Amino acid sequence: MGKKFSLGLDFGTESVRALLVEVETGREVGAATCEYPRGVLDEKLPGPDGAPLGPDWFLQDPRDYLTGLVEVVPASLREAGAAGEDVVGLGLDFTACTVMPTDAAGTPLCCIPEFQADPQAWVKLWKHHGSAAEAQRIEHVAEERGEPFMDYYAHAISSEWLLPKALEMRHRSLRVYDAAWTIVEGADWVPWQLTGRLARNACCAGFKAQYLEQLGGYPSHEFLEAVEAGFGDFYETKMPGPIVPAGHAVGGLTPEWAGRLGLAEGTPLSAGMIDAHMGVPGVGITEAGRMALVLGTSFCQLMLGDELHLCEGPLGIVRDGIISGFHAYEAGQSAGGDIYAWFVENCVSARCEEQARRQGVSVHEVLTEEAQRLAPGECGLLALDWWNGNRSTLMDAELSGLIVGATLNTRSSEIYRALIEATAFGTRRILEAYRAGGIDVRELVGCGGMPERNPFVVQVFADVCGMPIHVAGTSQAMALGAAMCGAAVAGRDRGGYDSIQEAAGRMAKPLRGTFTPVPEHVAVYDELYHEYAALYDRFGREGRLMHRLREIKARSR
Amino acid sequence: MGKKFSLGLDFGTESVRALLVEVETGREVGAATCEYPRGVLDEKLPGPDGAPLGPDWFLQDPRDYLTGLVEVVPASLREAGAAGEDVVGLGLDFTACTVMPTDAAGTPLCCIPEFQADPQAWVKLWKHHGSAAEAQRIEHVAEERGEPFMDYYAHAISSEWLLPKALEMRHRSLRVYDAAWTIVEGADWVPWQLTGRLARNACCAGFKAQYLEQLGGYPSHEFLEAVEAGFGDFYETKMPGPIVPAGHAVGGLTPEWAGRLGLAEGTPLSAGMIDAHMGVPGVGITEAGRMALVLGTSFCQLMLGDELHLCEGPLGIVRDGIISGFHAYEAGQSAGGDIYAWFVENCVSARCEEQARRQGVSVHEVLTEEAQRLAPGECGLLALDWWNGNRSTLMDAELSGLIVGATLNTRSSEIYRALIEATAFGTRRILEAYRAGGIDVRELVGCGGMPERNPFVVQVFADVCGMPIHVAGTSQAMALGAAMCGAAVAGRDRGGYDSIQEAAGRMAKPLRGTFTPVPEHVAVYDELYHEYAALYDRFGREGRLMHRLREIKARSR
Repeated sequence: MGKKFSLGLDFGTESVRALLVEVETGREVGAATCEYPRGVLDEKLPGPDGAPLGPDWFLQDPRDYLTGLVEVVPASLREAGAAGEDVVGLGLDFTACTVMPTDAAGTPLCCIPEFQADPQAWVKLWKHHGSAAEAQRIEHVAEERGEPFMDYYAHAISSEWLLPKALEMRHRSLRVYDAAWTIVEGADWVPWQLTGRLARNACCAGFKAQYLEQLGGYPSHEFLEAVEAGFGDFYETKMPGPIVPAGHAVGGLTPEWAGRLGLAEGTPLSAGMIDAHMGVPGVGITEAGRMALVLGTSFCQLMLGDELHLCEGPLGIVRDGIISGFHAYEAGQSAGGDIYAWFVENCVSARCEEQARRQGVSVHEVLTEEAQRLAPGECGLLALDWWNGNRSTLMDAELSGLIVGATLNTRSSEIYRALIEATAFGTRRILEAYRAGGIDVRELVGCGGMPERNPFVVQVFADVCGMPIHVAGTSQAMALGAAMCGAAVAGRDRGGYDSIQEAAGRMAKPLRGTFTPVPEHVAVYDELYHEYAALYDRFGREGRLMHRLREIKARSR
Repeated sequence: MGKKFSLGLDFGTESVRALLVEVETGREVGAATCEYPRGVLDEKLPGPDGAPLGPDWFLQDPRDYLTGLVEVVPASLREAGAAGEDVVGLGLDFTACTVMPTDAAGTPLCCIPEFQADPQAWVKLWKHHGSAAEAQRIEHVAEERGEPFMDYYAHAISSEWLLPKALEMRHRSLRVYDAAWTIVEGADWVPWQLTGRLARNACCAGFKAQYLEQLGGYPSHEFLEAVEAGFGDFYETKMPGPIVPAGHAVGGLTPEWAGRLGLAEGTPLSAGMIDAHMGVPGVGITEAGRMALVLGTSFCQLMLGDELHLCEGPLGIVRDGIISGFHAYEAGQSAGGDIYAWFVENCVSARCEEQARRQGVSVHEVLTEEAQRLAPGECGLLALDWWNGNRSTLMDAELSGLIVGATLNTRSSEIYRALIEATAFGTRRILEAYRAGGIDVRELVGCGGMPERNPFVVQVFADVCGMPIHVAGTSQAMALGAAMCGAAVAGRDRGGYDSIQEAAGRMAKPLRGTFTPVPEHVAVYDELYHEYAALYDRFGREGRLMHRLREIKARSR
């Protein structure tokens, strides 16, 4: 029998990647990436008359996902010189909660002329923050009623989740809401397109839509009706489809899609998973005590646990949400690399730009080179990392970024460093909440784009957290995890494996290296973290300044 | 008798300007500006082996002042087609406290080879902040001893003043301190060079060196000895020279300098004045109740008062400090236009730079154009304007800048606007302190570079303060004020006037226009100012975070 391959598909915020992996060895033999042609819509809808979007709105065009797929799958096969029929299975991960309304055929409403001018008909990207009021309402009613599911979500409802996004749709465009046969995650819509079958992956259902099997499934009709009259039947009517865990097949490729992608008809496709979560098996974590620290555009802290600890740090606790038999714990920061990118795009001196041009490197590299010459604390700045709100421990999308300590001598690179440190303090705050909740964090495994793109960031994280950070052996942890799922759905008979654990055991890469904390840095960062924690309480818990600024802003428009 | 002229010399932070004015009408007939060749030294001393400078240090090279003078005086005469002998008098203003050590001949120690490598031998610019510890010590001892002069300086000693800067010199370089025959303001050193006579202008002596005639002059020997053993004789030994008010002559031009400048030997030179203060007569204010709002690199709020009110807002109250017979009240913000310039230099997107290039305008213009399209409050940001510390009401150079409310959608122009608003809130805070102290502020007259360079800034100030701002009829208020002093020292016999008041009455320009507050803007800014005031108290009075960040920064170097 010739070599068999599994294909991992990783749908990120800006692009989709395909990774072709040899099932037996885990060797990555082909890879291709495609930037979404329309990227992230944050100012207006496409077209000359495209409607302007609200503040903190982030939409996407679902056609971009398929356009990307048709490009990256054949490209990864070509690179490997592999035949389509040797691909035994596919897996995928996706940003989430990234949702869209569709008709019964799976056609997104934004692709139907009569709805295309309405922002509510488009994909709401995970970081879309238009549904703050709805999240507050849902949270308020759930807490008031003592809904038991709230224990699993830190007693908070994020405006990034499915229910607030759906309710926002109902409020801003009842026409779109009524026309929606379903509201579906990108992670489930793509398999629906490819296999003709609509299923809900257990990971998104649990973490983003409050599906908890042990509590009987989705929140109740009565609860939703209490949130808003007429909304009670939301789950019953708008969320059809069985719950399927990753590593289990949604179905096989339709003839049409098999043809387009150059794969065999019927090739099994695993249920999807949230992108960050897919990094957990992707870096080889299939046991309790080891945390995957996913450092990408946003940051996630993910763990498997043998026991259930209902505590503050995690924003979601879902049994079987990543690997069957374990409680999956998720915490996260709504913006990570996104903050560094914001800074480079909006606030970098012409001097840096010019230096980057001259040296033929990126502005990030110029800033990092300058920033890492500073000692911890030398920039004299301290920041709160809430450029896109806070999504763990405070669960408040209305919070915003703060920076203090600026002088006339402050340089771009110093602000850049302070922003990196702020995101590391945010991670440390989450680690401390996990521990306070009784969850033992014994090891940190860094993955996501950052370890490769900017190792300095990982060193700062090690220094701030006072723990070594081991770097995953692949820079494509999520795509590799997805490929493991593809191997698991193929099953042993087709040359794959019987479970994700088994697949991870064979396909995961050895750790690539370790960032060790520097004791003198740890000492300074302990001191600065203490200040961070005080600011955190002041602006995140006690004061309401950030909320009032948003109110004034909203009124002024 | 042909036309007579007076020459006003305005020594700013970056450049010196000469303004030739027709004495009879106040008509500005010639003007020239020269950027200081070495500008502001903020990273290292000049030369390949120049010593690196501390954080928040700002030095200058005194030779730049004379280089500039030799260029601008003849140039202004040429422009007017005026003969040197028709210039009846000169006046000057200078940034302050901008001081240097010299030998007995007036040669600055930094121009003597054996001292040139020592930063303490150079001019310390007004905004140099290397003497924070010394200021604290002086303030502490003065308050402990109940020194009566402290009532006139808001019970605080600014590290920007002469005494801390001198004590810093004694601490960091006893060799330079011992070698200094005197320590002298730029405002007095230039006249010393030009006339051969060393006098101290009453304005700098009062506002920057605690000379109060009604209390018997400078602070006492005993007080200084209590500050530090051996420092007691500072004023007696290092500060020779009589106190001379502006509008009174220091002396006449030496033959050498008359030749260099193309003026007549013996032409009288008025005692200098602090640049901002010179704006008061310069805009035609010679009575109580009207405030000069000087908007330049830093901001000043200056008034004349009939009565003495010892209160919080002003950082200095000096009788005869501006115009004889009045109490001069000064308040100020250590950085104004400097903050906007910092932002443009360090934190502006390539997009703005490129747009400015394409349109052939400055980056400031691009940002302003975008910023003024926003409604008040729309940027969602709030800042504390302490990029160079706070110099009125809090009197704390260790404070630093803060900005809160940033999101991933925040644009450069929004931050730019928030910084402008922050400086306006800072001014309003000062106005409120004046009023709380019983000082009636009936009218605001805007001057300095800003009204001409960026009218939008003045509109924001009007909206934030809720008062009309009248704009001075000249964009050269300080240089014109200096020319009024030149006319006053000439005296009636030489074709001048008998006093500054008389000169101002004839030479001041009518107000050029008025920025009227927009009621809807005033309402939003009232709300935002309330938030500003709370942050101000939190970070300026209650908390010590900014101080601790500076401590950590200092330790880390």
